[in-house]
Amino acid sequence: MKFKVKDMNIATGSVLVAVMNEKDAFKLDIHSKDRVKIIKGKKIETVVVDIAESCKTVPQGRIGLFEEVLDSLKAKNNDTIRMIPARKPLSIDSIKKKLDGKDLTKEEINQIVWDIVHNKLDSIELTYFVAAGYTKSFSMKETKWLTEAMVSHGDILKISKHPIIDKHCIGGIPGNRTTMVIVPILAAAGLAIPKTSSRSITSPAGTADTMEVLCDICVPLKKMKAIVKKINGCIVWGGAMNLAPADDKIIKVEYPLGIDAESQLLASIMAKKLSVSSTHILIDIPVGKGAKVESMREAKKLKHDFEKLGNLLGRRVKVIITDGSQPIGNGIGPALEARDVLWLFENDSRAPQDLKKKSLIMAGTILEMVGEAPPLLGYRKAKKIVESGLAYKKLIQIIKAQGARITSSKRIKLAKFSFDFTAKKTGIISKINNKSISKIARIAGAPINSSSGMYLYKHVGDKVKKGERIFTVYAESKDKIEYAKDTLKKVDGIKII
Amino acid sequence: MKFKVKDMNIATGSVLVAVMNEKDAFKLDIHSKDRVKIIKGKKIETVVVDIAESCKTVPQGRIGLFEEVLDSLKAKNNDTIRMIPARKPLSIDSIKKKLDGKDLTKEEINQIVWDIVHNKLDSIELTYFVAAGYTKSFSMKETKWLTEAMVSHGDILKISKHPIIDKHCIGGIPGNRTTMVIVPILAAAGLAIPKTSSRSITSPAGTADTMEVLCDICVPLKKMKAIVKKINGCIVWGGAMNLAPADDKIIKVEYPLGIDAESQLLASIMAKKLSVSSTHILIDIPVGKGAKVESMREAKKLKHDFEKLGNLLGRRVKVIITDGSQPIGNGIGPALEARDVLWLFENDSRAPQDLKKKSLIMAGTILEMVGEAPPLLGYRKAKKIVESGLAYKKLIQIIKAQGARITSSKRIKLAKFSFDFTAKKTGIISKINNKSISKIARIAGAPINSSSGMYLYKHVGDKVKKGERIFTVYAESKDKIEYAKDTLKKVDGIKII
Repeated sequence: MKFKVKDMNIATGSVLVAVMNEKDAFKLDIHSKDRVKIIKGKKIETVVVDIAESCKTVPQGRIGLFEEVLDSLKAKNNDTIRMIPARKPLSIDSIKKKLDGKDLTKEEINQIVWDIVHNKLDSIELTYFVAAGYTKSFSMKETKWLTEAMVSHGDILKISKHPIIDKHCIGGIPGNRTTMVIVPILAAAGLAIPKTSSRSITSPAGTADTMEVLCDICVPLKKMKAIVKKINGCIVWGGAMNLAPADDKIIKVEYPLGIDAESQLLASIMAKKLSVSSTHILIDIPVGKGAKVESMREAKKLKHDFEKLGNLLGRRVKVIITDGSQPIGNGIGPALEARDVLWLFENDSRAPQDLKKKSLIMAGTILEMVGEAPPLLGYRKAKKIVESGLAYKKLIQIIKAQGARITSSKRIKLAKFSFDFTAKKTGIISKINNKSISKIARIAGAPINSSSGMYLYKHVGDKVKKGERIFTVYAESKDKIEYAKDTLKKVDGIKII
Repeated sequence: MKFKVKDMNIATGSVLVAVMNEKDAFKLDIHSKDRVKIIKGKKIETVVVDIAESCKTVPQGRIGLFEEVLDSLKAKNNDTIRMIPARKPLSIDSIKKKLDGKDLTKEEINQIVWDIVHNKLDSIELTYFVAAGYTKSFSMKETKWLTEAMVSHGDILKISKHPIIDKHCIGGIPGNRTTMVIVPILAAAGLAIPKTSSRSITSPAGTADTMEVLCDICVPLKKMKAIVKKINGCIVWGGAMNLAPADDKIIKVEYPLGIDAESQLLASIMAKKLSVSSTHILIDIPVGKGAKVESMREAKKLKHDFEKLGNLLGRRVKVIITDGSQPIGNGIGPALEARDVLWLFENDSRAPQDLKKKSLIMAGTILEMVGEAPPLLGYRKAKKIVESGLAYKKLIQIIKAQGARITSSKRIKLAKFSFDFTAKKTGIISKINNKSISKIARIAGAPINSSSGMYLYKHVGDKVKKGERIFTVYAESKDKIEYAKDTLKKVDGIKII
């Protein structure tokens, strides 16, 4: 069947699509989401069909193509192409199988991930896969295969060092910028830690956003390899790389409902670690109200599953469950969090002690895992590396290797508008709500406005006097300050007893 | 926030969408599938956001709008509009709740259906709803609410007659055109039967396709009402009406995976019946290989669920489980099936006896249900109505009321190319595969080419001699004949022992 091309003048950015007029589709017995092959000369592309009811969109006798397909076929408006029906991707049957609660084989899982990475699945089909993973459990074996498939259908960072360290935190806690403390400590101790981090999606800052205050974070794989080879560590944005890319596509269809399918979460996290060839991995599960994991029961199950999966994948995985009941550190927002980290390394008295302690425990645990410190003595070794200034030197090295912008806390600028939130009565702070703190910092502008956010002077258990500052909100406009003030009236943020 | 409109020159045909450039979306902290309000003057429309990565699709500072939104706002290219963030539809939380396996309230279900009908849910969100219904069961109470919501968010046919009859067949059996026999019988008996039927989706003919050979099937609600008022019965295409329209939108996202969520299936079927105000409903579940229901266990569960749901909805529902192991009737394809029906009413010796018998049983059962025949005597009464010519007269009345095209079997034309499939050996036919028969008839051109399909001379249990015709395939081109011949070699169609 021959058609004339209509250039839709749009890039879909994902699955390859062709739009047919309803009447043509009916005649050819083609339905929405069926596959067809589009042929021009020697070039062939398999695409998903969308049906247009209106002639204005695509008239009869024409086929609407998007940028990606036009480029691949080297076709342009009014060209003639041939179209023949094609089979649906094999993985659709496997997705249905999983939705029916049946186990998948290694090959089936591999095919699904291949199809996801290569944009062969339409968003409806991908949603069924996520829904299947959410409602029906994957076995550990399946999760292992899913992890391996995610790794193999993407780039892999290979470094000729051993061990290779990684760490991960199941998020939800404002502040909590431990990565930026741990990486310099371990790299200073001679361990390779090629760290990729993410930007914030719904929080006031991700590690990538915070590191970006100090230096570039978009580092190509080759340069990343060179940096780690030379100075052991880096902190780059994983989103700019093609490491285990299936994950990003899965997250996109999870976002509308705000769900996390556990097996897919486990696989996604482990795949990111394996794609940088990590051998030893520390996972932090903060538990508390407003954290991603709210119950100890859930945390313990996740710990068990991570350790089991790590074992199956032949990696040393250690999981720690930590206090996630309140923010860690004082700054919330990219610049404010970066300043906390610099203060910590500069041995400044304003450095947040909770962030320091948690980071040292985690770095110490890793030092013990790899035998760089005897059991129970990792914390002490990590502390020495920080207080001797070695970790600071390493951080500066990393910042410089990634195109330094700022290397000293003095050069960090905060947003020019601010207001103080003060205690309404004298007493002890009994609760700081993670979600409310995140919300206010985001409303103030973080992470988009990197110098916005809030600074906490108090933590749970601290005494306050009536009228004393509890936190300061920073924003780049008066409007945002007012909006943050309004929100503060509505949310249940800080409790004093 | 102000934007300039870019007219995307496309109608989406479903959910209202606005496309933003990735950089604008990032700045405003808006994600794909978030909702925003688009404001122009006094007009406001809430839409789903899609993110464009390329400037060619939508450059920064502009917002891409589709026909539906442009029309509703009376906006055109380069107009300036205001955009503000909006909340997601309430039903998204309910869909997540169901995906978590929790029961929904009547209000939650009603809101979901409202949002579906009014195109407020994106296809990903709708897919989660279908997946939730497929993997987690709805209680009977929930299914009742779902049915009622589907009915109330659509048109309703109100007829001042009692009882009002409907029937439904859970498909999968080629031929099986009982509706076109039952409706005239019951209407001739004085019963109101405002029948809406569907076109084929994956079969060689639906009742609507077959009726269309004889007359118009796109009948507006008002005309349908007038016809039923005057002559008791009609057979129209439900797809052209707005009766329980949520169903069509659900079917669209079920199609890519080919799944049926049982509660949604029950609700969809019952909603179509309730939307024409039926009081007495007969449901036929054919069981057999290649039918939609393949096991007796499944059929019995479905029977039980239909009867229970009917009870909850205050309707008399009777379910019969019938033999679905082979095609019913001889013709397969719109014209061939219409000819079978006409032969049956014309008391022609070529009329298929299996179709006649099944239709009389079903019509008789309904006559007994409503008290128009004493128990066990319904069949006899139905037979009399057919053989006396009263039913034929009624069919002609219906055909004429719907704009007659053909009223006599003699005027039905078949496709001009054909070939005979003959027995390879002498013996008894032990199996006729429903799926293979459907496939060959579709490949021959049915239902798109209404005069194509196949005609069966033999059924299971019949004797054949080597070389004797088993069926004839009809098609409008030699190519299709060749293609059908090729397919015949590959499929497991007819077995002779």
